[in-house]
Amino acid sequence: MHTDLVAALDIGGTKIAGALVDGRGRILARAQRPTPARENGETVMRAVEAVLGDLTASGLWGRASAVGIGSAGPVDASAGTVSPVNVPGWRDYPLVARVREAAGGLPVELIGDGVAITAAEHWQGAARGHDNALCMVVSTGVGGGLVLGGRLHPGPTGNAGHIGHISVDLDGDPCPCGARGCVERIASGPNIARRALLNGWRPGPDGDTSAAAVAAAARAGDPVAAASFERAARALAAGIAATATLVEIDIAVIGGGVGKAGEVLFAPLRRALTEYATLSFVQRLAVTPARMGTDAGLVGAAAAALAGRTDAAVAGV
Amino acid sequence: MHTDLVAALDIGGTKIAGALVDGRGRILARAQRPTPARENGETVMRAVEAVLGDLTASGLWGRASAVGIGSAGPVDASAGTVSPVNVPGWRDYPLVARVREAAGGLPVELIGDGVAITAAEHWQGAARGHDNALCMVVSTGVGGGLVLGGRLHPGPTGNAGHIGHISVDLDGDPCPCGARGCVERIASGPNIARRALLNGWRPGPDGDTSAAAVAAAARAGDPVAAASFERAARALAAGIAATATLVEIDIAVIGGGVGKAGEVLFAPLRRALTEYATLSFVQRLAVTPARMGTDAGLVGAAAAALAGRTDAAVAGV
Repeated sequence: MHTDLVAALDIGGTKIAGALVDGRGRILARAQRPTPARENGETVMRAVEAVLGDLTASGLWGRASAVGIGSAGPVDASAGTVSPVNVPGWRDYPLVARVREAAGGLPVELIGDGVAITAAEHWQGAARGHDNALCMVVSTGVGGGLVLGGRLHPGPTGNAGHIGHISVDLDGDPCPCGARGCVERIASGPNIARRALLNGWRPGPDGDTSAAAVAAAARAGDPVAAASFERAARALAAGIAATATLVEIDIAVIGGGVGKAGEVLFAPLRRALTEYATLSFVQRLAVTPARMGTDAGLVGAAAAALAGRTDAAVAGV
Repeated sequence: MHTDLVAALDIGGTKIAGALVDGRGRILARAQRPTPARENGETVMRAVEAVLGDLTASGLWGRASAVGIGSAGPVDASAGTVSPVNVPGWRDYPLVARVREAAGGLPVELIGDGVAITAAEHWQGAARGHDNALCMVVSTGVGGGLVLGGRLHPGPTGNAGHIGHISVDLDGDPCPCGARGCVERIASGPNIARRALLNGWRPGPDGDTSAAAVAAAARAGDPVAAASFERAARALAAGIAATATLVEIDIAVIGGGVGKAGEVLFAPLRRALTEYATLSFVQRLAVTPARMGTDAGLVGAAAAALAGRTDAAVAGV
């Protein structure tokens, strides 16, 4: 039978999504379950198996040649295990072996969710045609992934591109990760809202204190709201400039809820980048909003499965 | 004739060194000239040609199949040009074309000096056997380079690994590069000495105010001298942890004059790394002193030439 599809799993703290995806990134079948994140590890695995069950029951399963998984991190691709912060029942959980078993022995590729988003943006989105790119998700947390030399760079354990937890303020506020002054501690949605409230911004009658509400206030001219986005932009600029200075990227793609704030974020971000990206080889660095929608995780997991299949073919496996 | 050698050039602001190097990294012939750094570009180029002239005059030149250049940066490997900060006569100077001409048309590989040091440490030094490594030079400035996935990662322009100019203190002191709070601004030798003097350290009767003198004072128990090294160690730790978090390295190698300070630097550096390298996949990160000596630049340039020759062979050129 012609094996022109791959299966994709996008595993987060809220939902487990699955799909069968063709070589052009089109989703031909879908399945989804809520993540029973507070249950024990086997219960969470049964939700994954239910998603895979729906996919195997589709008439298209026989055309799938591999499974790609993008999982909330940390992951350990070299060991085939995951330890998602928001799924306490999974610690060093052997997800790759369990999925391989549930998928009838197909080869399985595991990457972190930030890396998966990056694979999707590089394949079909805003990083397409860029051989060296950083793709980020700025929302409740800050994650990311890298494309280097035209290829996804997941790193040995599948976690590379973790820009949310690099320190851009070595004496700064403690971050839940244990370090200080991390990009996420300054630029995530909850931190943008926290800082605005701390400095005197007050929500409207609906009581909405989300970063989106702060963005709306900034657009309406509230200087405290605007200043909180400017501070987030500075932290993002320092982190993006550090990445470019270390590995030579020419584009940074920003998705997630905060990435949708538009010029409230991007105008100060572009200004701050000129301050931190100073060396000749990083001065042409561009920042741009993400283009992929909510299927980015699935499309990226599919891209990883397709790339793994190609590598295996090249290696003569 | 058997072409088992490569020519190597190490171009800095003080000297231009050249060598013929075999496939095991042994130097079989040498040449050297002072860099006429304040002269015009053609005068500097004549010094390079004089070094190449000495090498071509050796009986071994006929066995050379390629030339590798490690140059003070910034370089632009994609354009074949260099613009070393300390050699104002060279701005976008077409060094690759000029060296190719002077070397009888041999293929020429250009990389930055930090990348060259990294190539040497990976081939023969402290990063040998490590597929993912950061190698640094901490002295008057702070430079570096990366090995990713078992291969040198020079980046498209040959400048990747420029850890000295990533900001770890986004509100910090202005850096000559134009940014703020760069690793170099806190951790370079002159900045270690500057901070010690500022905080009340006084040199001995010889008036030596170098970072080496501060290190000696710290070893003798001077708390201000020790504190200046501790601050440098924190900045280095934040930068090294950022690099590991972004690209997954498992070792950082530190050379240069400050790298020779021993435990005065490495003890606080190891402590600070546990504070900044917090995510599971970076917790095993090691730091270690460099092993290559003053020939590191030449050996690394030779490694780049050999790798370029191999890539060309693989590509069927």
